[in-house]
Parts: sequence; structure tokens; C-alpha cells
Amino acid sequence: MRSGDTEHRSIWLESDGWSVGIIDQTRLPEAFETSRLTTLEETAAAISRMQVRGAPLIGVTAAYGLALSLRRDPGDEALDTARRTLLATRPTAVNLRWAVDRVTAVTLPLPPEERARAAYGEAARLAEADVEVNRRIGEEGLTLLRNAASNGGEGPVQVLTHCNAGRLATVDLGTATAPLYLAHEEGVELHVWVSETRPRNQGAALTAWELGRAGIAHTVLVDSAGSYLMAQGRVDLCIVGADRVAANGDVANKIGTYPKALAARDNGVPIYVAAPLSTIDRTLADGGAIPIEERNPDEVTHVRGRTADGEVALVELTPPGTRAANPALDLTPARLVTGLITQEGLVPASPAGLNSLPWSRATVRSRRA
Amino acid sequence: MRSGDTEHRSIWLESDGWSVGIIDQTRLPEAFETSRLTTLEETAAAISRMQVRGAPLIGVTAAYGLALSLRRDPGDEALDTARRTLLATRPTAVNLRWAVDRVTAVTLPLPPEERARAAYGEAARLAEADVEVNRRIGEEGLTLLRNAASNGGEGPVQVLTHCNAGRLATVDLGTATAPLYLAHEEGVELHVWVSETRPRNQGAALTAWELGRAGIAHTVLVDSAGSYLMAQGRVDLCIVGADRVAANGDVANKIGTYPKALAARDNGVPIYVAAPLSTIDRTLADGGAIPIEERNPDEVTHVRGRTADGEVALVELTPPGTRAANPALDLTPARLVTGLITQEGLVPASPAGLNSLPWSRATVRSRRA
Repeated sequence: MRSGDTEHRSIWLESDGWSVGIIDQTRLPEAFETSRLTTLEETAAAISRMQVRGAPLIGVTAAYGLALSLRRDPGDEALDTARRTLLATRPTAVNLRWAVDRVTAVTLPLPPEERARAAYGEAARLAEADVEVNRRIGEEGLTLLRNAASNGGEGPVQVLTHCNAGRLATVDLGTATAPLYLAHEEGVELHVWVSETRPRNQGAALTAWELGRAGIAHTVLVDSAGSYLMAQGRVDLCIVGADRVAANGDVANKIGTYPKALAARDNGVPIYVAAPLSTIDRTLADGGAIPIEERNPDEVTHVRGRTADGEVALVELTPPGTRAANPALDLTPARLVTGLITQEGLVPASPAGLNSLPWSRATVRSRRA
Repeated sequence: MRSGDTEHRSIWLESDGWSVGIIDQTRLPEAFETSRLTTLEETAAAISRMQVRGAPLIGVTAAYGLALSLRRDPGDEALDTARRTLLATRPTAVNLRWAVDRVTAVTLPLPPEERARAAYGEAARLAEADVEVNRRIGEEGLTLLRNAASNGGEGPVQVLTHCNAGRLATVDLGTATAPLYLAHEEGVELHVWVSETRPRNQGAALTAWELGRAGIAHTVLVDSAGSYLMAQGRVDLCIVGADRVAANGDVANKIGTYPKALAARDNGVPIYVAAPLSTIDRTLADGGAIPIEERNPDEVTHVRGRTADGEVALVELTPPGTRAANPALDLTPARLVTGLITQEGLVPASPAGLNSLPWSRATVRSRRA
């Protein structure tokens, strides 16, 4: 992402060779600020406070968190504590566990003095693999957008997205947004309906910011309005991300994905879920087994934004003392999903579709990437 | 509504006998402030700026607006201008036209010097009729809540509502909330899921405030979360209001009603629309003919709330210059509506259901009330 003259990924190794830079996403769109992670504890806090968020980015951040921890204490006990600390930060995103397991598998067989270096190496490989995976997801999705452009009649291809499965949710390019960036580069005319994504407004704050930087036309909507636009025939297709996909194709993603999928079905609009293989959890038979994160109710009752003076302020929306509930994700049944866009192709959201993916090859590839 | 020691309706004739008092709903829940309307222009502004809102209340306010106008100038031309001014304030709520037509029908045949007095009389009758209509809607809905309480197993009856079809949306009692208030009075154990209702947060700001004053247990949710709760089996029934119902039973209501109806259908949860007969527009064959109000995009990009200091602040959520769309309502197809709760009983949302209503009797009754 461009900020001033600098092109940023969402996470990077600092020039000191060991500390980890991130974009503090809780400060966007008010301010583009970077933050430097130097310890396991800072890394875990950055994930749970959502300074970094998005399933793929959480995975890579956790991998660096293990490296930071091993740098201080490479012993088995410290490694185990670090694993547990990181796994407890966000319960739903399976990439977190996947990345932590990858780094553990690489480091645990090694003598302690070699572990930190190996962990940094694996974290860097995961980061590079993420960008490559997203590029391939982008190419798969690009075909869908090209087809929509040639079938869709007049005007730009109208895409609806929810939350931020964008550059900021990954190391770069994004999952759901990768097809948009590639299509835009190629000159496909696009317009993106950006669902604001209460309570944390990742659509209004992050996706709008990303698309704006990339020069892609977009319009922000309240979350409830997507279904109305679909009923009006103003959406050609929906693309969303995923926090976890179960073995039957059920999708856990940001709260509000399920009602959009219902509206898509009711109006014959295709809805695709962009999901790297690391997001697919074949250990869970269906979505009912995916843990759904319940976050602090303050995120519902209070909203952060800029005042007319340009100051950042937190304002309370509800009468004092009002109770709120804050489920952070919902489950979209596989029957409502048109297809999963993975780095290995577009597959049906079904057991057969998921089984058709080249699991062993994918693992080897991303390990080598 | 109780404020301090005073019981307030949402609109009343002031003690001077001619100016009209309202609760300024744009100031809630931060402050309970009343405002005094003295001219047609102030009345039209109060409606379009949503100091008063809710289809039934808009109707009564417009009736008083005609009375205020006729008091200044009872001539035919001024009456016609006043009608047009009021009809232009909000396009979707049919009660507005209904009330304006009622007052016009009563006043136009009279000599100018008698018109203002007759208009005040008709506005007062409409206000009283609204309270009576809501009481009868409440009694119809109460039966549904009693049944849910006896069938629903353990714990309170779980009701989901959207926007504010409450006391504040009517002269008193509300439409969708009338069953809740009557059930609570009767001791039926209730819990209400309050959908916050972006962009203007009428749920979070107004319904939560109303239910809090009445002592009814409630929890605020982001709009996207209602469908998740339904999928989890945590909602026994939904009750919403309506801005306009077409002859086939299609319902125009606050943006976000349609996705809730889709989720209700997908999960076998009944969804009822509380609609006085004045909300039903038999001149329109289906919902496609209902004009849908598009409001200022600033309502999406900016949110008002209280800072920690207790000050009211408006904050911007999106990057500067972001485009937003703001359709204020959506259409729920009749096929998704379990039933319409009217003052004349619960009827199917269908041409037959609407035709079964005692139209001539209803008109006579509310005229006499």
C-alpha cells in the first residue's frame, strides 16, 4: 500500500533484522501509523486488539510472534507458552493455528540455539507464500470479473464486498480484493459496493481506504443495504473472505456475511468466498463446530471517528448502561455459497469440492514458495 | 414516555392552544428535549430532518402542519402549497399523504374562516385514533407473545425488532412495540434484541431508550447479527413496523428489514409486520411501485454520539471524500412476511388478506375516534 512515497506491505521485518513492523489498523483511516513489535506479548496484543486483523495476516503475525519469543527464550517450555498465548488471541481464524503449527513443526526438532533463526525463516516464507497465494486467487477471480464484464451489459462490473479481506487483511493484495486489483490493473471497469461492516467498520475504514489508494471506484453502504441493491439488480457478484471454512464448505466470516448470502440466493446473484487453503479446516465436519468469537460489547455501543477538527474521538451511541452483544462472525451454510476461490482454482463449497483440491501439493508448494 | 415526573406523548398541542410540541428525536438518547412548532415551514423541516419520524407520527405531525398553515392563511392557494410542502418531506411513508388528504377533505369544503379550527380538530382526532389503533395492534400482538411464552420452553420470549416502530414513531405505544408494552404490563417475561439500525441508529438510540424507560430487558446488536441469532435459535419471533404496505402485501420498511425477513424464513422464525390500516396503500399493486427514499450520504459517513465528557459529537467514519449511498428503506416481498398485525386483526400479507380487512368500517371508526 502506498503511503507518501513508500510502498508498504501490511507486515515486514524491520531493518534491524529482528523486530517486526506492522500498520496499526486501528488508526486507519484517520492516520497511517506503523508500529514495531519486539516481544511475544506485544504481538499477541496487536492481534487481539486488531491492530493486525484478517485471517491470513493474523497467521503471518503469529509466526513472527513465535520468532520473537524464541529469540528471547528458545526452550521447549517457552515455545509451548508462546503457542498457547498466540492461539488464545482470536478463536475463529484457523490460519492462526495453521501458522503456529507450521513454525512449531520447523523449530521443535532443532537444537534451541537454531530455533529463532529457523522461525524467522519460516515466518518470512509464510509471508511470501501469502502474497503468491493471493496472486493466484486473484487470477482465478479475475476470470469471473472478465466474464461479468462481457456478459453484464452497460457500465462497470458491480461487485459487493463485506469487511476487509483486502491488502490489510493479508501480507499484500488481499484475498477477496486480489481479483479487483488484478482486474483494475488490466483495465476491467469496476465499481465496488463496500459494506461498512459494523461494529468495527472495516469496510468503511479499511476497504474504502485501500480501494481509494488503488484508484478503484467504490461506494460505502450500511450493511443492511447490500440486499436491497441485489434486489434492484445493481450487483453482478459478491466476493467475500473467510476466517475458516469447514470440511463441508460452511464458511465462518465476519458477521453479516450470512444475510448477504441469503440475499444473493434470493436474487440470483453469485457469491464467492476467496479462501486460501490455509483457511480451510478439514478437521471440522461442518460450520457448527467452528468457534465463533464473541467480542467486547463496547465495540457495538461505541464508535470511533474523526471530528470536524480532525481529532479522533470515541462516541457512545446507546443510552448509558445499555447491554449489547457482539458476535464477531457468522456462519454461511455451504448451500448458499456459489464457489470457493482458492489458489488451486474455483471449487464448489462442498465435501467433494474441497476434496478435489491438491492438498499434498499445496502444502509442499507453499512450504517451498 | 416518562421524562422526570412528566408523561409525554411524542406530539401534543401546547397550552397556548395552537402551537405544537414535539420531542426532538435527533437529540435522543443524549438529551430529552422538546421543541415547539409554530409554522408550516418548521413542521416540514422537523419531518425532513427526522426530529419527528415513524410513519404514524409523521402523519399526525403533517396534520398539525396544515392546521398551523391554515391558521396563518386559510386560502385555497396556501392550503395547496402547504399540502405540497408536507408531501415532499418524506416520500415513502404513506401515512403522510393519508393524513394530509384527511385534513384537506375536512377543511376544503368549509369557508376559510372555519378551516384552521377544523384542521386542529382533525389533527387531534388523528392523534387520538393513532393511540387507539396502536392499542388494538398491541392486543393482537399480545396473543402472539402469550403463545410464544407458553410454547417456547425456558426463559423469556425472545423478540427481535428493527428500527423504532415504537412510542417515538407514533403518538404513543408504538406499532411494533405495542405488543411488547402490553405483554410487559401483563407480566409476560420478555427479552428484546434491538437491531441498531444504521445509518441513523434508531434502534440503538430510540428503541433502547424507550424500552429502558419501560423496564423491558433488551440487548442491542449490529444489524447484521440478527440473522446469526436466528440461526442459533435465539429468536422466537420478529416484529417490525412498516412505512408502506402495497396491495399484494409487499412491505417497505427501514433498510435492513428485508435481510431479516430472509433470515427468518431460512430459520423458521415468524416475522410479523405491525401496520395500521393507514400504512396500507391499496393504490399500489406491489412493492415495486413504492418510492424508496434516498437520503443524504452524510448519514452513512458520519455518526453522532456522546464523547466520554458527555458532549455530543459528530464523527466521520470513512476516509475523507468517500462516496456513500443511503437508501433509507427496503422492500420485503409479501412471501417472506408471516402476517400483518393490524388494528382489525392479524391477516396474511396477501391480496386476499388485505381485502379481508373492513376498509369502510375502519375509516369510519378512526374518523369517529
